[in-house]
Amino acid sequence: MFSEKGTFRGALFLSEETAHFYSPFPVFEGISQGPDGWGEIGSHPGKRRIPVTSSLIFQYRLAVFLVCLIFGPAPSLAETVPVAPQGPFARVYLPQNAPTGPDLFFGPMVWEQMNRDATHNAAFRLERSGPSWFSGGVGWRFAEARAWPLWKKKPFGARTYGETEAGAVQTQFYGNALGVSVVDGIVYAESDDMFAYALNARTGQLIWRNSPVGNHLMGNPVVKGRFVYLSAGGVGFNFANVVRFRRTGRAVRGMDVSYNGIYALDRRTGHLIWHYGSVGEVMPTPAIQGHTLFFATGSGGVHALDRRTGRSLWVTRLQGNDNMSSPAYAGGRIFLAMAVPPRLYSLDARTGKVMWSETIEGAANTGMGDVSPAVSHGIVVMDTVTAPRKVLGKPTLQPVIEAFDAVSGKPLWRKKMGRGPVPPAFKGGVPMIHGSVVYVGSPVNGEYEARNLLTGKLIWRWKRVSSARSAPTYLHHRLYIAAEDSLYVLDPKTGRQIARKTVGGRMGIVSPVVIGGTVYLANSWDWIVAIPLSDITGR
Amino acid sequence: MFSEKGTFRGALFLSEETAHFYSPFPVFEGISQGPDGWGEIGSHPGKRRIPVTSSLIFQYRLAVFLVCLIFGPAPSLAETVPVAPQGPFARVYLPQNAPTGPDLFFGPMVWEQMNRDATHNAAFRLERSGPSWFSGGVGWRFAEARAWPLWKKKPFGARTYGETEAGAVQTQFYGNALGVSVVDGIVYAESDDMFAYALNARTGQLIWRNSPVGNHLMGNPVVKGRFVYLSAGGVGFNFANVVRFRRTGRAVRGMDVSYNGIYALDRRTGHLIWHYGSVGEVMPTPAIQGHTLFFATGSGGVHALDRRTGRSLWVTRLQGNDNMSSPAYAGGRIFLAMAVPPRLYSLDARTGKVMWSETIEGAANTGMGDVSPAVSHGIVVMDTVTAPRKVLGKPTLQPVIEAFDAVSGKPLWRKKMGRGPVPPAFKGGVPMIHGSVVYVGSPVNGEYEARNLLTGKLIWRWKRVSSARSAPTYLHHRLYIAAEDSLYVLDPKTGRQIARKTVGGRMGIVSPVVIGGTVYLANSWDWIVAIPLSDITGR
Repeated sequence: MFSEKGTFRGALFLSEETAHFYSPFPVFEGISQGPDGWGEIGSHPGKRRIPVTSSLIFQYRLAVFLVCLIFGPAPSLAETVPVAPQGPFARVYLPQNAPTGPDLFFGPMVWEQMNRDATHNAAFRLERSGPSWFSGGVGWRFAEARAWPLWKKKPFGARTYGETEAGAVQTQFYGNALGVSVVDGIVYAESDDMFAYALNARTGQLIWRNSPVGNHLMGNPVVKGRFVYLSAGGVGFNFANVVRFRRTGRAVRGMDVSYNGIYALDRRTGHLIWHYGSVGEVMPTPAIQGHTLFFATGSGGVHALDRRTGRSLWVTRLQGNDNMSSPAYAGGRIFLAMAVPPRLYSLDARTGKVMWSETIEGAANTGMGDVSPAVSHGIVVMDTVTAPRKVLGKPTLQPVIEAFDAVSGKPLWRKKMGRGPVPPAFKGGVPMIHGSVVYVGSPVNGEYEARNLLTGKLIWRWKRVSSARSAPTYLHHRLYIAAEDSLYVLDPKTGRQIARKTVGGRMGIVSPVVIGGTVYLANSWDWIVAIPLSDITGR
Repeated sequence: MFSEKGTFRGALFLSEETAHFYSPFPVFEGISQGPDGWGEIGSHPGKRRIPVTSSLIFQYRLAVFLVCLIFGPAPSLAETVPVAPQGPFARVYLPQNAPTGPDLFFGPMVWEQMNRDATHNAAFRLERSGPSWFSGGVGWRFAEARAWPLWKKKPFGARTYGETEAGAVQTQFYGNALGVSVVDGIVYAESDDMFAYALNARTGQLIWRNSPVGNHLMGNPVVKGRFVYLSAGGVGFNFANVVRFRRTGRAVRGMDVSYNGIYALDRRTGHLIWHYGSVGEVMPTPAIQGHTLFFATGSGGVHALDRRTGRSLWVTRLQGNDNMSSPAYAGGRIFLAMAVPPRLYSLDARTGKVMWSETIEGAANTGMGDVSPAVSHGIVVMDTVTAPRKVLGKPTLQPVIEAFDAVSGKPLWRKKMGRGPVPPAFKGGVPMIHGSVVYVGSPVNGEYEARNLLTGKLIWRWKRVSSARSAPTYLHHRLYIAAEDSLYVLDPKTGRQIARKTVGGRMGIVSPVVIGGTVYLANSWDWIVAIPLSDITGR
């Protein structure tokens, strides 16, 4: 069970001839099968790779649109076929709710990393004019499978677990841990309710939902070509690993409802195309560069796959578990952190070779493995909780933020944030870089900070919430923060709070996705929400 | 999170006046609410308690039948109301599939413990004549939510985890760990697919399914009055408990999708009536005596509730975790075993006081906490794996079976079974007592044994499977065993194999339920199956 050898066997190949039959598109992109042979083996149309110019994009999208219009959804034999086809986990597909016409041009065309890119700024600037809702914004709420009423004051299970712990439990086992992705007019979300969702970004209507996984989905879906990639795995340990940890200080994280790994779905229909099984969870979000998909596991593996087929390109074994530290791709390197032991790694993206690794002095518990490093300007920003100590009889932690040279790993600067009480579960603040400023929250005392990326010098501090963990989002001179039950808007220059909008529920490590006039959020209470910016600032 | 204080707050009470309004029946039985306030608070009709004679039973059942016929399903305000009412986890209720007329008289009227009573013999002798299918038998297969095709050779995930491990994983996270319960013509099943099911015993048609739980259901549903009780909780540990175990050798087991504890559903409609939340899993099946429901948790708690309301009567804190050791009720006592440290307990059922506790020398790992003791004739039979040792470089275990005096705890006899390789996951054989014979399997070498209950003397051994863990079932001079992918029929006197019927999939710790002419099974591949006895013996 601890061997990772098995993970190489997650995909199966057919000859291109066999496969081509089903493809209405000119270029065959990938073949594979359902999880472990579940369902038939088949083929899948791909997208032609063309130089990306505005006009070509338009022509291409128009062509896709017309082809879909004429041929309907492309057939796929790789579907997971539930034996009870009307069963609750069967895929639901409502093509009539898919975006059409100009709505297909809303948002980016790809979503390659957690919060879109290595800076973790989940914003997208609309570059051309579109329908009025693009800039005017839309508002809707979508209830996922286990949606807990937003008007409730307390999380599910508060009576049994206590209010704070119950909130953390709800993020870990119930709703959406991270935020959504938005690509080509569709909102994608992963939920711990076991389902992945695709919604129309304008209307909030369900296009598809699928649960080929039977596992926790704690990532931010990455989207490229015809695929949406889900990362599956939960926080738990089995007893064998509890015993192993006692003996050796090491354990594999992630034993779950069913099965860990990466699931590649057709992003238009929600069909499962391939599954790559892993030993240990894949809670972190994968990263894509070109045709390669990178991910890390609860058994310390870092994997590169051909994202079209699920075929393994390389595997590097590191020590520890990756909890929620999503690999960031930048400049030919992969950056991620492991927990137990806590360590930040830089790997060559082509070979998987470890180029450097560093730790943050005093890093405590799972903190470092929870944080997704942000990379920009050749600088990697990482933080962690450190130095556990009792203050007035209560356990406290000291967050530290540190910057490293991306190429050499040389530490550039290191700053302490305010000490505070030990938070439940996720113990980090995901940093976000915009321009030459890094924004980061503190899980222990709820402060958000802005610092100069090059020097670490403090620009401002803002404290209005008790837990600050998600990366803020920067768009058009506004900083958006999702924390607790609200969305906050700040002046990114001064940290002055401009507006607050109560959403309800509890935001886990959710970064607001800001596109045009709308903010898209997901939350631990199993909701996906769109809020027009005009609703937030009151204009 | 480790405090069990919170578990006292799982139910809420209304005055009888308020409640009575909705009750078409003369006696008000219980009031409560959904999990943590999910849904409205309401009332529920109960059953009048009357001296049980054949004629009264008939009159009573006829009356219930007529009342149902006239008034339809009794209203309940305690429903969990999904915000997305058409969502996949919403309750499905198909009253047209419920048994009617004489079919309501099929099987026992209550199912109070794992495998029906403290002997763990899941058989029921039909005492009166009924429709021809009662004795002629029926055959059907019902695919649960994640049903994995029975014609598959290998379990789900075999490629990633290896075939043996994948089988264990499928039992722990996917399908039914234990077998079904059959009461009044309805088959009840709990599945790790997160759903509880009620099927018509004759037709196999779905009457209801519900998932108020969002957690693993690994028990054998217990049924009494208007209730079916589900026990919720999974095998996992969170990181805090991994660390805690390293330091102290103790940990709470069971952190899961959502929430641990006992869920009481209306057995006719699947409505949630009350939820009692616990810290730590409730993988074991509860036991009922009169109006009291007993259960044990992954945090070492043993609880007694008023089964009508979910109100706590007493809690006794023991050391260790209860994994799958279901409490057996017999003669005013509760018998169950904990793991880590391994120990068998006898508690006074009225007060929760520990009357005696014993261990089996050399008990290893989680073995003792996996086994549900069988009790009969004032004797408690318990077994466990012991004495881990490498043989030819491979880790092996030595099962031991031991009998204790139920009142004093005095050891009566102790026998070794054959040494064999360490099995994955569940490490025990559930003993079954019929007459003066105890039948038990060995998880390490696949042998089933029959021994004299009073002396421990071996009567026969049968070895045809590699893993023997479930309790056999005795009815009409036949012994039924579910193991691996098959149902076996043995001569209980000699151990001679009379027949074998391939069912497909893999049976976890599934005891065949034998009633009249039919065997009912559930399996790890998420199926419920009825097989007519005539199909098995070929006549």
